[in-house]
Amino acid sequence: MKLVHDPVHGYIELDEFARKLVDTPEFQRLRRITQLGFAFLAYPSARHTRFEHSLGTFHLAKKIRAHNPEIEEGALYAALLHDIGHYPFSHTLEGLYPRHEENTLWVIEHGSVGDVIKENYSTQEFKKLLKHPIVSGDIDADRMDYLVRDAYYTGAAYGVVDLERLVRNLKFDGKMLVVEEKGIMAAQNLLLSRAMMYPTVYFHHTAKIAEAMLRKAVEIEGISLEEIRIMDEIDLVSRLRSSEKPEVRELIRAIDDRKLYKRAYCSNRELDEKTISTLKRELQEEFGYSALLDYPPKPKYEERNAFVKIGSETKRLSEVSPLVRSLVEMKDVYWRWCVYAREDVREDVEAFPKKLF
Amino acid sequence: MKLVHDPVHGYIELDEFARKLVDTPEFQRLRRITQLGFAFLAYPSARHTRFEHSLGTFHLAKKIRAHNPEIEEGALYAALLHDIGHYPFSHTLEGLYPRHEENTLWVIEHGSVGDVIKENYSTQEFKKLLKHPIVSGDIDADRMDYLVRDAYYTGAAYGVVDLERLVRNLKFDGKMLVVEEKGIMAAQNLLLSRAMMYPTVYFHHTAKIAEAMLRKAVEIEGISLEEIRIMDEIDLVSRLRSSEKPEVRELIRAIDDRKLYKRAYCSNRELDEKTISTLKRELQEEFGYSALLDYPPKPKYEERNAFVKIGSETKRLSEVSPLVRSLVEMKDVYWRWCVYAREDVREDVEAFPKKLF
Amino acid sequence: MKLVHDPVHGYIELDEFARKLVDTPEFQRLRRITQLGFAFLAYPSARHTRFEHSLGTFHLAKKIRAHNPEIEEGALYAALLHDIGHYPFSHTLEGLYPRHEENTLWVIEHGSVGDVIKENYSTQEFKKLLKHPIVSGDIDADRMDYLVRDAYYTGAAYGVVDLERLVRNLKFDGKMLVVEEKGIMAAQNLLLSRAMMYPTVYFHHTAKIAEAMLRKAVEIEGISLEEIRIMDEIDLVSRLRSSEKPEVRELIRAIDDRKLYKRAYCSNRELDEKTISTLKRELQEEFGYSALLDYPPKPKYEERNAFVKIGSETKRLSEVSPLVRSLVEMKDVYWRWCVYAREDVREDVEAFPKKLF
Amino acid sequence: MKLVHDPVHGYIELDEFARKLVDTPEFQRLRRITQLGFAFLAYPSARHTRFEHSLGTFHLAKKIRAHNPEIEEGALYAALLHDIGHYPFSHTLEGLYPRHEENTLWVIEHGSVGDVIKENYSTQEFKKLLKHPIVSGDIDADRMDYLVRDAYYTGAAYGVVDLERLVRNLKFDGKMLVVEEKGIMAAQNLLLSRAMMYPTVYFHHTAKIAEAMLRKAVEIEGISLEEIRIMDEIDLVSRLRSSEKPEVRELIRAIDDRKLYKRAYCSNRELDEKTISTLKRELQEEFGYSALLDYPPKPKYEERNAFVKIGSETKRLSEVSPLVRSLVEMKDVYWRWCVYAREDVREDVEAFPKKLF
Repeated sequence: MKLVHDPVHGYIELDEFARKLVDTPEFQRLRRITQLGFAFLAYPSARHTRFEHSLGTFHLAKKIRAHNPEIEEGALYAALLHDIGHYPFSHTLEGLYPRHEENTLWVIEHGSVGDVIKENYSTQEFKKLLKHPIVSGDIDADRMDYLVRDAYYTGAAYGVVDLERLVRNLKFDGKMLVVEEKGIMAAQNLLLSRAMMYPTVYFHHTAKIAEAMLRKAVEIEGISLEEIRIMDEIDLVSRLRSSEKPEVRELIRAIDDRKLYKRAYCSNRELDEKTISTLKRELQEEFGYSALLDYPPKPKYEERNAFVKIGSETKRLSEVSPLVRSLVEMKDVYWRWCVYAREDVREDVEAFPKKLF
Repeated sequence: MKLVHDPVHGYIELDEFARKLVDTPEFQRLRRITQLGFAFLAYPSARHTRFEHSLGTFHLAKKIRAHNPEIEEGALYAALLHDIGHYPFSHTLEGLYPRHEENTLWVIEHGSVGDVIKENYSTQEFKKLLKHPIVSGDIDADRMDYLVRDAYYTGAAYGVVDLERLVRNLKFDGKMLVVEEKGIMAAQNLLLSRAMMYPTVYFHHTAKIAEAMLRKAVEIEGISLEEIRIMDEIDLVSRLRSSEKPEVRELIRAIDDRKLYKRAYCSNRELDEKTISTLKRELQEEFGYSALLDYPPKPKYEERNAFVKIGSETKRLSEVSPLVRSLVEMKDVYWRWCVYAREDVREDVEAFPKKLF
Repeated sequence: MKLVHDPVHGYIELDEFARKLVDTPEFQRLRRITQLGFAFLAYPSARHTRFEHSLGTFHLAKKIRAHNPEIEEGALYAALLHDIGHYPFSHTLEGLYPRHEENTLWVIEHGSVGDVIKENYSTQEFKKLLKHPIVSGDIDADRMDYLVRDAYYTGAAYGVVDLERLVRNLKFDGKMLVVEEKGIMAAQNLLLSRAMMYPTVYFHHTAKIAEAMLRKAVEIEGISLEEIRIMDEIDLVSRLRSSEKPEVRELIRAIDDRKLYKRAYCSNRELDEKTISTLKRELQEEFGYSALLDYPPKPKYEERNAFVKIGSETKRLSEVSPLVRSLVEMKDVYWRWCVYAREDVREDVEAFPKKLF
Repeated sequence: MKLVHDPVHGYIELDEFARKLVDTPEFQRLRRITQLGFAFLAYPSARHTRFEHSLGTFHLAKKIRAHNPEIEEGALYAALLHDIGHYPFSHTLEGLYPRHEENTLWVIEHGSVGDVIKENYSTQEFKKLLKHPIVSGDIDADRMDYLVRDAYYTGAAYGVVDLERLVRNLKFDGKMLVVEEKGIMAAQNLLLSRAMMYPTVYFHHTAKIAEAMLRKAVEIEGISLEEIRIMDEIDLVSRLRSSEKPEVRELIRAIDDRKLYKRAYCSNRELDEKTISTLKRELQEEFGYSALLDYPPKPKYEERNAFVKIGSETKRLSEVSPLVRSLVEMKDVYWRWCVYAREDVREDVEAFPKKLF
């Protein structure tokens, strides 16, 4: 057994099989995938990676399983590997490529980590485990780790959650993890904290702008899925720095030097697909890569899938908690799309979308 | 200048006048007034007192004033003394006597602390300062200190608030403290944390039961306002322990030994004044001091009085925050009244209120 | 199983037998015995009690035993009860009465807690368990809990210790707990932290003065061992407040109001027994209770009894650690005796011991 | 004024001039220089960079200056820029190139940060400020920040220091920062913490091995000072990954995949210069890059340069503190040199140095 020191959870124990999985190049690569993309441009200390987060998720999954021994052991290793398919800068490039969950399946099929898995599980079996509620539910080990960890590294006050109380009050009913009565307040707090982390950290405009710039650079550079799926951040950034295309070099240089585009126009008005395409195309024609549309998906009502046990009844948490109900509304309050622009064209870009409506 | 070490705020600086106020017997008495009444029976570590809280409130008030120099200095000393009228076990006995704010006025008029005040302020002037928004608003130094402090001492995860961000974004507009845009999330978090502390800590049933028992003991003992207003917890408990009335001795002994009454009946159904009196009287006739009705006041919609500045407009926080709006509902969810009973009569008491409805 | 929330350790689990022990009046009395005596006069937040500390010691003992299953279970309950004999204000009165360890034996023999013990252990057997190294060694559950807890409540930066690493590296060899190689740094840190807590917190002169004043009040009042051994702090203080002797009332009043004696004379020169007696007597004759000699015992070289395992050899920690060796010297640096005096006689007292030497 | 959120210090305020300095490419590059080199291979969470540390050092320098207004303002900006010359992976490559302090001077002369400096200071003047005791003493802003920060990011329990007490008790006497009496314990704790961080974190063998491997890769690759001095970690690692020399690619690949060399031989026996050279040469001849000698410099007795004020006298801290005296000995205990070897030649390498002695 190997012990890993972690400032969030104290010591994380890795059994022999976990250690083997961690020792693969695919898992070690996670050390070079920043957990929060470019959030560090707004919160300089947010330099943690998918590596620590994956260990933390494994650790919490083990604690949940200690209270629910009927959960199959394999789910723990799925928790450990659930993020192994993340692209450089985590969610940043998901608009350009398949979602990281799909890449995780690919890595497991093609990486040497797959060989280690096969010592104990068939690939098919393991792929199914990746959807286990312990790691892909609304209240699960993944979310519990990242909230607390992101709060620790950013210093944001919103991610402090009574994990121990929550862990002790999660009951696996064969299909999902249900929060027992004594854990309701902690579960509410988890969802609230997450909701407050969104506008403050995850969607901080500085990070969003840098992410849009990187996406554009990668798009122009024309990096294929085959290439990106095994890159780490060093590969990607050095590729862009040494690009033959001056626009690409300009964009990555601007990110490196934190000379970012500015918000030229923001709105919370919903647009239909067609309008979005038109706007995008026209911006491109008029301004090229110096104006970028960032239209994030509307928030999902996912909190509705957290379930609690009141007496013998299983209910949605949103049914019993007015706070959780209000989260949906809150998301709407903070959702918006923007056009970012390079300093020199900012004023022109500012006027542009207005003409459209 | 004197420095006081405090685990919540680091070092608290006391200027000469503050030091003089702190050195009065009335202020020192606060060391023997537990901040959270009998919460320590549920959270053993919650042994902090009104003394530390008063220093912390003074400290935060000073920080708020550093960003709002137009606030009059006297408000700081009002912050320091705002709780000097608390009875033993803080809010526990407020049902039997005038609210502690009134007693604060009395102490200031009659105690030696009043003589110190008069070195710089007229009593009338100072009494007005006690209502200054820096210490009696919805988002004020008092509330900011107690939430964070209570979280620290209970270990509850709900009171972690970004005080520094909040302090930097509180603007005194001559009438009240208004939260500026960058402080909205921290202000929301303060109110949410408070809302979560209520059911978890402040209204924990174990504490509520002990408080009801103490109230009954004090009632039977017949302690006058003149007596209670200068007592500390040692005076009160030893008085009850040495009472001539065996019921009083029995009650305080049960609290000391944590052999508490149990909840016999609880309901969230509202009762009118008359029904409450009837129920109380009938319980008294039937069971004497071995059954206690605890009908707490319905929650107030006070969060509506937190104001924020959006652009040049001042709005209610509840207008812009769905989360804060939902707090009112939340309070309703957790509000309820109970009848507590001594073990031996519990079953009989359980049946009793049911007959009524 | 019952869970107790504790800000230091998270959740403490009490099994059925532990719960029964905790539910005795003798154990509940510990809620009214302050852990650090009058340290709260210097560190206002240090209001924690022997109750929380006892639970914490039990908790750590259980963790140590989880790595050393050969330790007998009874030692855990000894850890829980090891402080049950403390007098009001903890060590303050030990100069006047037998050490608290002796009173612990008495309480176990005579209190109702003894009846609970007898359900599982003979009294003789249990008394032996109280000397088990898990609770009475140089590096044990008791010391580990109090250091970290005292640091938490005072806010002192010296008591932060990697308890988990230490616990994982304590090996019971049948006779004592030996620190394994990977735990040496954490063990050093524990002893260092303790050494730094002494001058800063435990021997803070403000606390020492109040303690000397209380001892004098108790001495004058003439409280017998039979009385004191079952008193809590409420009993003691109210007894002194209502004493028939004006000196006693004056002393306790001065403590309550924090109008403390001042240091009139301090020295690190060692005195022999005879000189101490003479000085004490002459001070008494000249100044009565308004001058108090406080001659603390010279520090013990106890750190020499921490043992470590290097390879297959067991060595004293002081042999392998220059830091630990220097602790002994450090104690000498900070040791000193003082005479405290009431303001009005302070100058006269100041001159007094000088005449002697 | 700009505010930067930092989990260690809360909020860091940047005035206009500081903001300009931070906005230069040279300063932004520090975001890509890991604070602790390869310590993250042992403490995965230690991903913080020289960027955050530089901001933190500036912040503490400002606090020290607030208590010592006679310190010239320029020293604050020197504190901000003191690490701007660090090479990739911080101290790792200092054996191959001039010390980072020299490179800092070069960057200031040649980088665009120099142009910003010149708005307010002559280059000569500023270079002198870099040696100001506020940032290059034994107890200074630099050391205070990195200890607390490194503890935060590694989770090590050794770096908890009462910074506020220390800051309040540092007095600039025109030549150096002297610790006043009330700050002695905090100063001791700082030096002790540092001493304990060395063997535990800074000299953790896993990090040391990776560092030796990187040094060898850089040496073989033959990177000139002109190149390295402006590289960030992305530049360096991608350069090594795409090297034409297979040994270089092998070494960086092994670091990336954490397939590190192992300790083949370690000793605390001092060697003279000649023996070191011989050993190095013979290892090279026999094993090439698959065996690496790591002979760190003997620890310096630098703690002797911390000064304290006792009454009116200025003394060395080591004179008054037995603990600090023992630190020198402690360093000797932990100092040693090693030969690291690739798995396949490890046994042969193990035997090699033994032949020599």
